[in-house]
Amino acid sequence: MKNILIIGCGLIGSSLLRAIVKKKLSKKIFVYEKSKSNISKIKKLKLSCEIITDFKNVIPKSDLIIFCTPMSEYEKIILKINKYLSPQTIITDVGSSKESSLALIKKKLKKGISWTSSHPISGSEVSGPEFGDSNLFLNKWCILIKEQNSNNKHLIFLHKFWKKIGSKVVTMNSNKHDEVFSMTSHLPHLIAYNLVKTATDFEKQKKYDLVKFSAGGLRDFSRIAASNEIMWRDIFFNNQSNISKAIDLFIKNLKSFKKDIDSKNNKSLIKKLVETKKVRKKIIKLKQDINKPDFGRN
Amino acid sequence: MKNILIIGCGLIGSSLLRAIVKKKLSKKIFVYEKSKSNISKIKKLKLSCEIITDFKNVIPKSDLIIFCTPMSEYEKIILKINKYLSPQTIITDVGSSKESSLALIKKKLKKGISWTSSHPISGSEVSGPEFGDSNLFLNKWCILIKEQNSNNKHLIFLHKFWKKIGSKVVTMNSNKHDEVFSMTSHLPHLIAYNLVKTATDFEKQKKYDLVKFSAGGLRDFSRIAASNEIMWRDIFFNNQSNISKAIDLFIKNLKSFKKDIDSKNNKSLIKKLVETKKVRKKIIKLKQDINKPDFGRN
Repeated sequence: MKNILIIGCGLIGSSLLRAIVKKKLSKKIFVYEKSKSNISKIKKLKLSCEIITDFKNVIPKSDLIIFCTPMSEYEKIILKINKYLSPQTIITDVGSSKESSLALIKKKLKKGISWTSSHPISGSEVSGPEFGDSNLFLNKWCILIKEQNSNNKHLIFLHKFWKKIGSKVVTMNSNKHDEVFSMTSHLPHLIAYNLVKTATDFEKQKKYDLVKFSAGGLRDFSRIAASNEIMWRDIFFNNQSNISKAIDLFIKNLKSFKKDIDSKNNKSLIKKLVETKKVRKKIIKLKQDINKPDFGRN
Repeated sequence: MKNILIIGCGLIGSSLLRAIVKKKLSKKIFVYEKSKSNISKIKKLKLSCEIITDFKNVIPKSDLIIFCTPMSEYEKIILKINKYLSPQTIITDVGSSKESSLALIKKKLKKGISWTSSHPISGSEVSGPEFGDSNLFLNKWCILIKEQNSNNKHLIFLHKFWKKIGSKVVTMNSNKHDEVFSMTSHLPHLIAYNLVKTATDFEKQKKYDLVKFSAGGLRDFSRIAASNEIMWRDIFFNNQSNISKAIDLFIKNLKSFKKDIDSKNNKSLIKKLVETKKVRKKIIKLKQDINKPDFGRN
Protein backbone atom coordinates (compact mmCIF):
# COMPACT_ATOMS: atom_id res chain seq x y z
CA MET A 1 0.00 0.00 0.00
CA LYS A 2 1.21 3.47 -0.77
CA ASN A 3 -0.69 5.89 1.39
CA ILE A 4 -2.95 5.68 4.43
CA LEU A 5 -4.98 8.57 5.81
CA ILE A 6 -5.89 8.53 9.49
CA ILE A 7 -8.66 10.94 10.41
CA GLY A 8 -8.55 11.69 14.13
CA CYS A 9 -5.32 10.91 15.94
CA GLY A 10 -6.11 10.34 19.61
CA LEU A 11 -5.45 7.14 21.55
CA ILE A 12 -6.71 4.76 18.83
CA GLY A 13 -5.60 6.77 15.76
CA SER A 14 -2.08 7.26 17.09
CA SER A 15 -1.83 3.62 18.14
CA LEU A 16 -2.80 2.58 14.60
CA LEU A 17 -0.26 5.04 13.21
CA ARG A 18 2.47 3.55 15.38
CA ALA A 19 1.47 -0.03 14.45
CA ILE A 20 1.39 0.78 10.71
CA VAL A 21 4.85 2.35 10.94
CA LYS A 22 6.22 -0.56 12.97
CA LYS A 23 4.86 -3.16 10.54
CA LYS A 24 5.83 -1.03 7.51
CA LEU A 25 2.33 -1.34 6.05
CA SER A 26 2.41 1.85 3.95
CA LYS A 27 4.86 4.23 2.32
CA LYS A 28 3.30 7.27 3.86
CA ILE A 29 0.73 8.11 6.53
CA PHE A 30 -1.33 11.30 6.39
CA VAL A 31 -3.02 12.48 9.57
CA TYR A 32 -6.00 14.81 9.80
CA GLU A 33 -6.59 16.06 13.32
CA LYS A 34 -8.77 18.99 14.32
CA SER A 35 -7.46 19.47 17.87
CA LYS A 36 -4.53 21.90 18.01
CA SER A 37 -3.42 20.39 21.29
CA ASN A 38 -3.29 16.90 19.73
CA ILE A 39 -1.36 18.26 16.70
CA SER A 40 1.31 19.76 18.91
CA LYS A 41 1.54 16.51 20.87
CA ILE A 42 1.96 14.51 17.63
CA LYS A 43 4.75 16.86 16.55
CA LYS A 44 6.45 16.70 19.93
CA LEU A 45 6.25 12.88 19.89
CA LYS A 46 7.81 12.98 16.39
CA LEU A 47 5.27 10.43 15.14
CA SER A 48 6.13 9.45 11.59
CA CYS A 49 3.36 11.11 9.53
CA GLU A 50 2.37 14.17 7.52
CA ILE A 51 -0.25 16.31 9.22
CA ILE A 52 -2.71 17.68 6.68
CA THR A 53 -5.25 20.47 6.93
CA ASP A 54 -6.90 20.04 3.55
CA PHE A 55 -8.41 16.86 2.06
CA LYS A 56 -8.35 17.94 -1.59
CA ASN A 57 -4.89 16.71 -2.58
CA VAL A 58 -4.59 13.87 -0.10
CA ILE A 59 -7.80 11.85 -0.52
CA PRO A 60 -7.14 10.92 -4.18
CA LYS A 61 -3.69 9.65 -3.15
CA SER A 62 -4.98 7.60 -0.20
CA ASP A 63 -5.52 3.84 -0.65
CA LEU A 64 -7.01 3.44 2.82
CA ILE A 65 -8.85 5.97 4.98
CA ILE A 66 -9.43 5.17 8.66
CA PHE A 67 -11.87 7.23 10.72
CA CYS A 68 -10.68 7.36 14.33
CA THR A 69 -12.75 10.36 15.46
CA PRO A 70 -15.72 10.25 17.81
CA MET A 71 -18.71 8.95 15.82
CA SER A 72 -20.48 12.31 16.07
CA GLU A 73 -17.79 13.77 13.77
CA TYR A 74 -18.41 11.36 10.87
CA GLU A 75 -21.15 13.35 9.09
CA LYS A 76 -19.23 16.62 8.93
CA ILE A 77 -16.11 14.91 7.58
CA ILE A 78 -17.97 12.72 5.05
CA LEU A 79 -19.57 15.83 3.58
CA LYS A 80 -16.12 17.42 3.29
CA ILE A 81 -14.41 14.47 1.58
CA ASN A 82 -17.26 13.10 -0.61
CA LYS A 83 -16.20 14.88 -3.81
CA TYR A 84 -12.63 13.54 -3.64
CA LEU A 85 -13.51 9.88 -3.05
CA SER A 86 -13.27 7.15 -5.66
CA PRO A 87 -14.82 3.64 -5.57
CA GLN A 88 -11.33 2.12 -5.20
CA THR A 89 -10.66 3.91 -1.90
CA ILE A 90 -11.02 1.59 1.08
CA ILE A 91 -12.73 3.39 3.97
CA THR A 92 -13.14 2.06 7.48
CA ASP A 93 -13.77 3.38 10.96
CA VAL A 94 -13.14 2.12 14.48
CA GLY A 95 -16.41 3.24 16.13
CA SER A 96 -17.81 1.19 19.01
CA SER A 97 -21.39 0.95 17.74
CA LYS A 98 -22.46 0.24 14.18
CA GLU A 99 -26.12 0.17 13.11
CA SER A 100 -26.87 3.82 13.63
CA SER A 101 -23.57 5.13 12.25
CA LEU A 102 -23.82 2.85 9.19
CA ALA A 103 -27.34 4.17 8.51
CA LEU A 104 -25.98 7.72 8.61
CA ILE A 105 -22.99 6.83 6.44
CA LYS A 106 -25.29 5.22 3.86
CA LYS A 107 -27.32 8.42 3.75
CA LYS A 108 -24.42 10.86 3.59
CA LEU A 109 -21.70 9.04 1.64
CA LYS A 110 -21.55 9.67 -2.13
CA LYS A 111 -23.27 6.93 -4.16
CA GLY A 112 -20.93 4.20 -5.42
CA ILE A 113 -18.46 4.53 -2.55
CA SER A 114 -17.94 1.61 -0.12
CA TRP A 115 -17.49 1.88 3.64
CA THR A 116 -16.39 -1.24 5.52
CA SER A 117 -16.66 -0.79 9.26
CA SER A 118 -14.21 -2.15 11.85
CA HIS A 119 -14.24 -2.25 15.65
CA PRO A 120 -10.97 -3.11 17.37
CA ILE A 121 -11.79 -4.14 20.96
CA SER A 122 -9.09 -2.18 22.69
CA GLY A 123 -8.80 1.07 24.51
CA SER A 124 -8.35 2.54 27.94
CA GLU A 125 -9.77 5.17 30.24
CA VAL A 126 -7.18 7.64 28.92
CA SER A 127 -7.39 9.66 25.67
CA GLY A 128 -4.90 11.42 23.44
CA PRO A 129 -1.97 10.58 21.17
CA GLU A 130 0.50 10.58 24.07
CA PHE A 131 -1.02 7.32 25.34
CA GLY A 132 -0.90 5.53 21.96
CA ASP A 133 0.92 2.22 21.71
CA SER A 134 1.84 0.14 18.64
CA ASN A 135 0.88 -2.99 20.61
CA LEU A 136 -2.60 -1.79 21.58
CA PHE A 137 -4.30 -4.18 19.15
CA LEU A 138 -2.03 -7.15 19.70
CA ASN A 139 -4.02 -10.37 20.27
CA LYS A 140 -7.21 -8.33 20.73
CA TRP A 141 -10.37 -8.98 18.75
CA CYS A 142 -11.21 -6.77 15.80
CA ILE A 143 -14.79 -7.05 14.57
CA LEU A 144 -15.27 -6.56 10.83
CA ILE A 145 -18.82 -5.65 9.88
CA LYS A 146 -20.20 -7.66 6.98
CA GLU A 147 -23.59 -6.70 5.57
CA GLN A 148 -25.43 -7.91 2.49
CA ASN A 149 -24.12 -4.96 0.49
CA SER A 150 -20.52 -5.16 1.76
CA ASN A 151 -17.65 -4.80 -0.70
CA ASN A 152 -15.99 -8.20 -0.59
CA LYS A 153 -12.65 -6.99 -1.89
CA HIS A 154 -12.48 -4.32 0.80
CA LEU A 155 -13.49 -6.86 3.45
CA ILE A 156 -10.68 -9.21 2.43
CA PHE A 157 -8.22 -6.33 2.41
CA LEU A 158 -9.21 -5.12 5.89
CA HIS A 159 -9.18 -8.66 7.26
CA LYS A 160 -5.51 -8.93 6.25
CA PHE A 161 -4.78 -5.39 7.43
CA TRP A 162 -6.02 -5.99 10.99
CA LYS A 163 -4.22 -9.33 11.16
CA LYS A 164 -0.98 -7.60 10.20
CA ILE A 165 -1.65 -5.04 12.96
CA GLY A 166 -1.77 -8.00 15.36
CA SER A 167 -5.52 -8.40 15.91
CA LYS A 168 -7.63 -11.55 15.84
CA VAL A 169 -10.37 -10.81 13.28
CA VAL A 170 -13.99 -11.95 13.42
CA THR A 171 -16.85 -11.00 11.12
CA MET A 172 -20.44 -10.22 12.11
CA ASN A 173 -23.28 -8.00 10.97
CA SER A 174 -23.96 -4.63 12.56
CA ASN A 175 -27.13 -5.82 14.28
CA LYS A 176 -25.41 -8.65 16.12
CA HIS A 177 -22.40 -6.44 16.85
CA ASP A 178 -24.52 -3.82 18.57
CA GLU A 179 -26.39 -6.41 20.61
CA VAL A 180 -23.22 -8.19 21.77
CA PHE A 181 -21.37 -5.02 22.73
CA SER A 182 -24.37 -3.40 24.39
CA MET A 183 -23.92 -6.17 26.96
CA THR A 184 -20.15 -6.76 27.13
CA SER A 185 -19.01 -3.16 26.90
CA HIS A 186 -21.68 -0.45 26.76
CA LEU A 187 -23.76 -1.56 29.76
CA PRO A 188 -20.64 -2.17 31.93
CA HIS A 189 -19.43 1.36 31.20
CA LEU A 190 -22.83 2.88 31.92
CA ILE A 191 -23.06 0.90 35.16
CA ALA A 192 -19.61 2.13 36.21
CA TYR A 193 -20.61 5.74 35.52
CA ASN A 194 -23.85 5.20 37.43
CA LEU A 195 -22.15 3.62 40.42
CA VAL A 196 -19.72 6.52 40.76
CA LYS A 197 -22.64 8.96 40.33
CA THR A 198 -24.59 7.14 43.07
CA ALA A 199 -21.64 7.20 45.46
CA THR A 200 -21.16 10.92 44.78
CA ASP A 201 -24.83 11.64 45.50
CA PHE A 202 -24.65 9.61 48.70
CA GLU A 203 -21.47 11.42 49.75
CA LYS A 204 -23.16 14.79 49.35
CA GLN A 205 -26.26 13.60 51.21
CA LYS A 206 -24.35 12.17 54.15
CA LYS A 207 -21.31 14.48 54.11
CA TYR A 208 -19.11 11.37 54.49
CA ASP A 209 -15.71 11.09 52.92
CA LEU A 210 -16.41 8.01 50.84
CA VAL A 211 -13.61 8.29 48.34
CA LYS A 212 -11.06 7.79 51.09
CA PHE A 213 -12.37 4.25 51.47
CA SER A 214 -12.91 3.43 47.82
CA ALA A 215 -10.34 0.62 47.64
CA GLY A 216 -13.02 -1.91 48.64
CA GLY A 217 -14.56 -1.98 45.16
CA LEU A 218 -15.57 1.52 44.08
CA ARG A 219 -12.14 2.49 42.75
CA ASP A 220 -12.23 -0.27 40.10
CA PHE A 221 -15.44 1.21 38.71
CA SER A 222 -14.07 4.76 38.92
CA ARG A 223 -11.33 3.84 36.46
CA ILE A 224 -13.88 2.74 33.85
CA ALA A 225 -16.02 5.79 34.64
CA ALA A 226 -13.10 8.08 33.80
CA SER A 227 -13.34 7.22 30.08
CA ASN A 228 -13.79 9.92 27.42
CA GLU A 229 -17.23 11.52 27.72
CA ILE A 230 -17.66 12.46 24.03
CA MET A 231 -16.86 8.95 22.84
CA TRP A 232 -19.24 7.42 25.36
CA ARG A 233 -22.03 9.94 24.77
CA ASP A 234 -21.85 8.95 21.08
CA ILE A 235 -21.97 5.23 21.90
CA PHE A 236 -24.89 5.59 24.34
CA PHE A 237 -26.90 7.65 21.83
CA ASN A 238 -26.02 5.52 18.79
CA ASN A 239 -26.77 2.18 20.43
CA GLN A 240 -29.72 3.56 22.42
CA SER A 241 -32.23 0.83 21.65
CA ASN A 242 -29.99 -2.09 22.71
CA ILE A 243 -28.60 -0.26 25.72
CA SER A 244 -32.10 0.68 26.85
CA LYS A 245 -33.11 -3.01 26.74
CA ALA A 246 -29.92 -3.98 28.57
CA ILE A 247 -30.70 -1.44 31.33
CA ASP A 248 -34.20 -2.92 31.75
CA LEU A 249 -32.81 -6.44 32.11
CA PHE A 250 -30.19 -5.16 34.56
CA ILE A 251 -32.80 -3.41 36.74
CA LYS A 252 -35.05 -6.50 36.68
CA ASN A 253 -32.17 -8.66 37.92
CA LEU A 254 -31.08 -6.10 40.51
CA LYS A 255 -34.61 -6.02 41.94
CA SER A 256 -34.48 -9.81 42.20
CA PHE A 257 -31.17 -9.55 44.12
CA LYS A 258 -32.77 -6.93 46.38
CA LYS A 259 -35.71 -9.23 47.05
CA ASP A 260 -33.33 -12.07 48.02
CA ILE A 261 -31.41 -9.75 50.34
CA ASP A 262 -34.50 -8.16 51.92
CA SER A 263 -36.16 -11.52 52.52
CA LYS A 264 -32.87 -13.26 53.45
CA ASN A 265 -33.50 -15.92 50.81
CA ASN A 266 -30.31 -17.88 51.31
CA LYS A 267 -30.86 -20.52 48.63
CA SER A 268 -31.73 -18.10 45.86
CA LEU A 269 -28.91 -15.66 46.72
CA ILE A 270 -26.20 -18.32 46.96
CA LYS A 271 -27.34 -19.80 43.63
CA LYS A 272 -26.87 -16.42 41.94
CA LEU A 273 -23.45 -15.82 43.51
CA VAL A 274 -22.20 -19.28 42.57
CA GLU A 275 -23.46 -19.01 38.98
CA THR A 276 -21.64 -15.73 38.33
CA LYS A 277 -18.42 -17.19 39.68
CA LYS A 278 -18.48 -19.77 36.88
CA VAL A 279 -18.45 -17.01 34.25
CA ARG A 280 -15.11 -15.82 35.59
CA LYS A 281 -13.58 -19.25 34.91
CA LYS A 282 -14.88 -19.14 31.34
CA ILE A 283 -13.43 -15.64 30.82
CA ILE A 284 -10.01 -16.80 31.96
CA LYS A 285 -10.23 -19.97 29.85
CA LEU A 286 -10.99 -17.82 26.79
CA LYS A 287 -7.96 -15.65 27.66
CA GLN A 288 -10.07 -12.51 28.08
CA ASP A 289 -8.30 -11.87 31.37
CA ILE A 290 -5.36 -13.33 33.24
CA ASN A 291 -5.68 -15.88 36.02
CA LYS A 292 -3.89 -13.84 38.64
CA PRO A 293 -5.62 -12.64 41.77
CA ASP A 294 -5.89 -8.90 42.17
CA PHE A 295 -5.09 -7.40 45.54
CA GLY A 296 -5.24 -3.81 44.30
CA ARG A 297 -2.76 -2.13 42.00
CA ASN A 298 0.36 -0.87 43.75
CA MET B 1 2.26 -10.38 73.65
CA LYS B 2 2.55 -14.06 74.42
CA ASN B 3 -0.16 -15.86 72.48
CA ILE B 4 -2.56 -15.00 69.68
CA LEU B 5 -5.43 -17.22 68.57
CA ILE B 6 -6.66 -16.87 64.98
CA ILE B 7 -10.07 -18.44 64.38
CA GLY B 8 -10.53 -19.15 60.65
CA CYS B 9 -7.40 -19.26 58.54
CA GLY B 10 -8.35 -18.43 54.94
CA LEU B 11 -7.04 -15.52 52.90
CA ILE B 12 -7.34 -12.93 55.70
CA GLY B 13 -6.52 -15.20 58.65
CA SER B 14 -3.41 -16.63 57.01
CA SER B 15 -2.28 -13.16 55.88
CA LEU B 16 -2.57 -11.95 59.46
CA LEU B 17 -0.69 -15.03 60.66
CA ARG B 18 2.14 -14.32 58.19
CA ALA B 19 2.24 -10.62 59.15
CA ILE B 20 2.32 -11.41 62.90
CA VAL B 21 5.18 -13.87 62.37
CA LYS B 22 7.09 -11.43 60.16
CA LYS B 23 6.73 -8.58 62.67
CA LYS B 24 7.37 -10.94 65.61
CA LEU B 25 4.25 -9.68 67.42
CA SER B 26 3.67 -12.80 69.55
CA LYS B 27 5.53 -15.75 70.97
CA LYS B 28 3.02 -18.24 69.64
CA ILE B 29 0.07 -18.32 67.26
CA PHE B 30 -2.75 -20.81 67.65
CA VAL B 31 -5.01 -21.47 64.69
CA TYR B 32 -8.51 -22.89 64.78
CA GLU B 33 -9.77 -23.89 61.35
CA LYS B 34 -12.77 -26.12 60.62
CA SER B 35 -11.98 -26.89 56.98
CA LYS B 36 -9.85 -30.03 56.59
CA SER B 37 -8.69 -28.84 53.19
CA ASN B 38 -7.46 -25.54 54.67
CA ILE B 39 -5.71 -27.40 57.51
CA SER B 40 -3.78 -29.55 55.07
CA LYS B 41 -2.84 -26.46 53.03
CA ILE B 42 -1.58 -24.69 56.20
CA LYS B 43 0.54 -27.73 57.04
CA LYS B 44 1.88 -28.00 53.51
CA LEU B 45 2.73 -24.28 53.49
CA LYS B 46 4.53 -24.83 56.82
CA LEU B 47 2.93 -21.71 58.28
CA SER B 48 4.37 -21.04 61.72
CA CYS B 49 1.47 -21.89 64.05
CA GLU B 50 -0.10 -24.58 66.21
CA ILE B 51 -3.36 -25.92 64.82
CA ILE B 52 -5.83 -26.59 67.60
CA THR B 53 -9.06 -28.57 67.66
CA ASP B 54 -10.17 -27.73 71.17
CA PHE B 55 -10.61 -24.28 72.74
CA LYS B 56 -10.49 -25.37 76.39
CA ASN B 57 -6.75 -25.15 77.02
CA VAL B 58 -5.93 -22.48 74.46
CA ILE B 59 -8.41 -19.67 75.18
CA PRO B 60 -7.17 -19.00 78.74
CA LYS B 61 -3.61 -18.72 77.36
CA SER B 62 -4.57 -16.33 74.51
CA ASP B 63 -4.01 -12.60 74.98
CA LEU B 64 -5.67 -11.76 71.66
CA ILE B 65 -8.35 -13.67 69.74
CA ILE B 66 -9.03 -12.69 66.12
CA PHE B 67 -12.15 -13.98 64.35
CA CYS B 68 -11.39 -14.39 60.61
CA THR B 69 -14.31 -16.70 59.74
CA PRO B 70 -17.38 -15.76 57.70
CA MET B 71 -19.68 -13.71 59.95
CA SER B 72 -22.31 -16.46 59.93
CA GLU B 73 -19.91 -18.63 62.00
CA TYR B 74 -19.55 -16.17 64.88
CA GLU B 75 -22.53 -17.34 66.95
CA LYS B 76 -21.57 -21.01 66.98
CA ILE B 77 -18.00 -20.23 68.00
CA ILE B 78 -18.93 -17.66 70.67
CA LEU B 79 -21.16 -20.22 72.35
CA LYS B 80 -18.26 -22.71 72.32
CA ILE B 81 -15.66 -20.34 73.79
CA ASN B 82 -17.78 -18.28 76.21
CA LYS B 83 -16.97 -20.29 79.30
CA TYR B 84 -13.20 -20.00 78.80
CA LEU B 85 -13.10 -16.23 78.23
CA SER B 86 -11.85 -13.71 80.78
CA PRO B 87 -12.37 -9.91 80.78
CA GLN B 88 -8.66 -9.40 80.04
CA THR B 89 -8.84 -11.27 76.71
CA ILE B 90 -8.84 -8.90 73.75
CA ILE B 91 -11.25 -10.13 71.09
CA THR B 92 -11.62 -8.70 67.61
CA ASP B 93 -12.94 -9.76 64.22
CA VAL B 94 -12.34 -8.69 60.62
CA GLY B 95 -15.93 -8.84 59.30
CA SER B 96 -17.00 -6.45 56.56
CA SER B 97 -20.24 -5.27 58.17
CA LYS B 98 -20.71 -4.34 61.80
CA GLU B 99 -24.09 -3.28 63.23
CA SER B 100 -25.86 -6.59 62.85
CA SER B 101 -22.92 -8.77 63.93
CA LEU B 102 -22.25 -6.53 66.95
CA ALA B 103 -25.90 -6.85 67.99
CA LEU B 104 -25.57 -10.63 67.81
CA ILE B 105 -22.26 -10.59 69.68
CA LYS B 106 -23.76 -8.45 72.45
CA LYS B 107 -26.57 -10.99 72.81
CA LYS B 108 -24.43 -14.12 72.73
CA LEU B 109 -21.13 -13.14 74.36
CA LYS B 110 -20.77 -13.82 78.09
CA LYS B 111 -21.49 -10.76 80.24
CA GLY B 112 -18.40 -8.77 81.23
CA ILE B 113 -16.39 -9.73 78.14
CA SER B 114 -15.35 -7.03 75.63
CA TRP B 115 -15.37 -7.39 71.85
CA THR B 116 -13.65 -4.68 69.81
CA SER B 117 -14.40 -4.99 66.13
CA SER B 118 -11.95 -4.31 63.28
CA HIS B 119 -12.31 -4.17 59.51
CA PRO B 120 -9.11 -4.21 57.45
CA ILE B 121 -9.98 -2.95 53.94
CA SER B 122 -8.10 -5.56 51.98
CA GLY B 123 -8.88 -8.74 50.19
CA SER B 124 -9.19 -10.25 46.77
CA GLU B 125 -11.49 -12.36 44.66
CA VAL B 126 -9.56 -15.46 45.76
CA SER B 127 -10.00 -17.38 49.02
CA GLY B 128 -7.88 -19.77 51.03
CA PRO B 129 -4.60 -19.79 52.99
CA GLU B 130 -2.53 -20.44 49.85
CA PHE B 131 -3.20 -16.87 48.68
CA GLY B 132 -2.30 -15.22 52.00
CA ASP B 133 0.37 -12.53 52.04
CA SER B 134 2.13 -10.83 54.96
CA ASN B 135 1.88 -7.53 53.04
CA LEU B 136 -1.87 -7.72 52.44
CA PHE B 137 -2.60 -4.98 55.01
CA LEU B 138 0.34 -2.74 54.18
CA ASN B 139 -0.77 0.91 53.76
CA LYS B 140 -4.43 -0.18 53.65
CA TRP B 141 -7.07 1.27 55.92
CA CYS B 142 -8.19 -0.65 58.98
CA ILE B 143 -11.42 0.59 60.55
CA LEU B 144 -11.64 0.21 64.32
CA ILE B 145 -15.20 0.28 65.64
CA LYS B 146 -15.68 2.56 68.63
CA GLU B 147 -19.05 2.54 70.37
CA GLN B 148 -20.18 4.18 73.60
CA ASN B 149 -19.52 0.97 75.55
CA SER B 150 -16.16 0.19 73.91
CA ASN B 151 -13.27 -0.96 76.07
CA ASN B 152 -10.76 1.85 75.75
CA LYS B 153 -7.77 -0.25 76.75
CA HIS B 154 -8.58 -2.82 74.09
CA LEU B 155 -9.12 -0.07 71.49
CA ILE B 156 -5.69 1.40 72.20
CA PHE B 157 -4.12 -2.04 72.02
CA LEU B 158 -5.74 -2.89 68.68
CA HIS B 159 -4.87 0.52 67.25
CA LYS B 160 -1.20 -0.24 67.90
CA PHE B 161 -1.58 -3.83 66.70
CA TRP B 162 -2.95 -2.88 63.26
CA LYS B 163 -0.34 -0.15 62.87
CA LYS B 164 2.37 -2.71 63.54
CA ILE B 165 0.78 -4.96 60.89
CA GLY B 166 1.23 -2.03 58.46
CA SER B 167 -2.31 -0.63 58.28
CA LYS B 168 -3.47 2.97 58.52
CA VAL B 169 -6.02 2.99 61.34
CA VAL B 170 -9.20 5.07 61.54
CA THR B 171 -11.97 4.91 64.14
CA MET B 172 -15.72 5.15 63.52
CA ASN B 173 -18.94 3.78 64.97
CA SER B 174 -20.66 0.73 63.50
CA ASN B 175 -23.54 2.77 62.09
CA LYS B 176 -21.31 5.03 60.01
CA HIS B 177 -19.10 2.10 59.04
CA ASP B 178 -22.01 0.18 57.59
CA GLU B 179 -23.30 3.21 55.68
CA VAL B 180 -19.90 4.06 54.20
CA PHE B 181 -19.08 0.52 53.13
CA SER B 182 -22.56 -0.19 51.78
CA MET B 183 -21.63 2.37 49.14
CA THR B 184 -17.89 1.92 48.59
CA SER B 185 -17.75 -1.85 48.74
CA HIS B 186 -21.03 -3.73 49.21
CA LEU B 187 -23.02 -2.06 46.41
CA PRO B 188 -20.08 -2.29 43.92
CA HIS B 189 -19.81 -6.03 44.58
CA LEU B 190 -23.54 -6.56 44.23
CA ILE B 191 -23.54 -4.55 40.99
CA ALA B 192 -20.67 -6.65 39.63
CA TYR B 193 -22.54 -9.85 40.46
CA ASN B 194 -25.69 -8.44 38.87
CA LEU B 195 -23.92 -7.35 35.70
CA VAL B 196 -22.42 -10.79 35.16
CA LYS B 197 -25.83 -12.35 35.91
CA THR B 198 -27.48 -10.03 33.37
CA ALA B 199 -24.90 -10.86 30.69
CA THR B 200 -25.39 -14.58 31.36
CA ASP B 201 -29.17 -14.26 31.03
CA PHE B 202 -28.76 -12.30 27.78
CA GLU B 203 -26.31 -14.90 26.44
CA LYS B 204 -28.82 -17.69 27.07
CA GLN B 205 -31.63 -15.66 25.50
CA LYS B 206 -29.69 -14.77 22.36
CA LYS B 207 -27.41 -17.82 22.15
CA TYR B 208 -24.49 -15.45 21.49
CA ASP B 209 -21.00 -16.11 22.72
CA LEU B 210 -20.63 -13.00 24.83
CA VAL B 211 -17.77 -14.07 27.04
CA LYS B 212 -15.47 -14.22 24.05
CA PHE B 213 -15.80 -10.45 23.75
CA SER B 214 -15.73 -9.60 27.44
CA ALA B 215 -12.49 -7.59 27.35
CA GLY B 216 -14.47 -4.41 26.58
CA GLY B 217 -15.60 -3.96 30.19
CA LEU B 218 -17.42 -7.08 31.41
CA ARG B 219 -14.27 -8.96 32.40
CA ASP B 220 -13.33 -6.32 35.00
CA PHE B 221 -16.66 -6.89 36.71
CA SER B 222 -16.35 -10.67 36.43
CA ARG B 223 -13.24 -10.56 38.59
CA ILE B 224 -15.11 -8.85 41.42
CA ALA B 225 -18.08 -11.18 40.88
CA ALA B 226 -15.83 -14.19 41.48
CA SER B 227 -15.46 -13.34 45.19
CA ASN B 228 -16.36 -15.83 47.92
CA GLU B 229 -20.11 -16.44 47.99
CA ILE B 230 -20.42 -17.27 51.71
CA MET B 231 -18.57 -14.14 52.76
CA TRP B 232 -20.70 -11.99 50.46
CA ARG B 233 -23.98 -13.64 51.37
CA ASP B 234 -23.18 -12.80 55.01
CA ILE B 235 -22.36 -9.18 54.14
CA PHE B 236 -25.50 -8.69 52.01
CA PHE B 237 -27.75 -10.16 54.73
CA ASN B 238 -26.02 -8.40 57.65
CA ASN B 239 -26.00 -4.95 56.04
CA GLN B 240 -29.39 -5.46 54.39
CA SER B 241 -30.97 -2.16 55.34
CA ASN B 242 -28.14 0.06 54.03
CA ILE B 243 -27.60 -2.05 50.90
CA SER B 244 -31.31 -1.98 50.15
CA LYS B 245 -31.27 1.83 50.29
CA ALA B 246 -28.13 1.93 48.14
CA ILE B 247 -29.83 -0.26 45.51
CA ASP B 248 -32.82 2.10 45.43
CA LEU B 249 -30.56 5.13 44.87
CA PHE B 250 -28.64 3.22 42.21
CA ILE B 251 -31.83 2.28 40.32
CA LYS B 252 -33.13 5.85 40.56
CA ASN B 253 -29.92 7.17 39.00
CA LEU B 254 -29.82 4.44 36.36
CA LYS B 255 -33.36 5.36 35.29
CA SER B 256 -32.21 8.96 34.96
CA PHE B 257 -29.30 7.84 32.74
CA LYS B 258 -31.78 5.78 30.67
CA LYS B 259 -34.03 8.81 30.27
CA ASP B 260 -31.07 10.91 29.02
CA ILE B 261 -30.10 8.20 26.54
CA ASP B 262 -33.63 7.51 25.30
CA SER B 263 -34.35 11.22 24.83
CA LYS B 264 -30.83 12.01 23.57
CA ASN B 265 -30.45 14.70 26.24
CA ASN B 266 -26.90 15.74 25.39
CA LYS B 267 -26.45 18.37 28.08
CA SER B 268 -27.68 16.23 30.95
CA LEU B 269 -25.73 13.14 29.85
CA ILE B 270 -22.43 14.97 29.31
CA LYS B 271 -22.80 16.65 32.72
CA LYS B 272 -23.12 13.23 34.39
CA LEU B 273 -20.15 11.76 32.51
CA VAL B 274 -17.91 14.74 33.28
CA GLU B 275 -18.84 14.76 36.98
CA THR B 276 -17.93 11.10 37.48
CA LYS B 277 -14.57 11.64 35.81
CA LYS B 278 -13.66 14.11 38.56
CA VAL B 279 -14.13 11.42 41.21
CA ARG B 280 -11.38 9.38 39.57
CA LYS B 281 -8.92 12.23 40.05
CA LYS B 282 -9.85 12.44 43.72
CA ILE B 283 -9.37 8.68 44.15
CA ILE B 284 -5.89 8.87 42.67
CA LYS B 285 -5.01 11.94 44.76
CA LEU B 286 -6.05 10.05 47.89
CA LYS B 287 -3.83 7.14 46.76
CA GLN B 288 -6.77 4.71 46.60
CA ASP B 289 -5.55 3.63 43.14
CA ILE B 290 -2.51 4.26 40.98
CA ASN B 291 -2.39 6.85 38.21
CA LYS B 292 -1.50 4.42 35.47
CA PRO B 293 -3.79 3.79 32.54
CA ASP B 294 -5.10 0.26 32.23
CA PHE B 295 -5.09 -1.37 28.82
CA GLY B 296 -6.09 -4.77 30.14
CA ARG B 297 -3.95 -7.11 32.18
CA ASN B 298 -1.49 -9.19 30.15
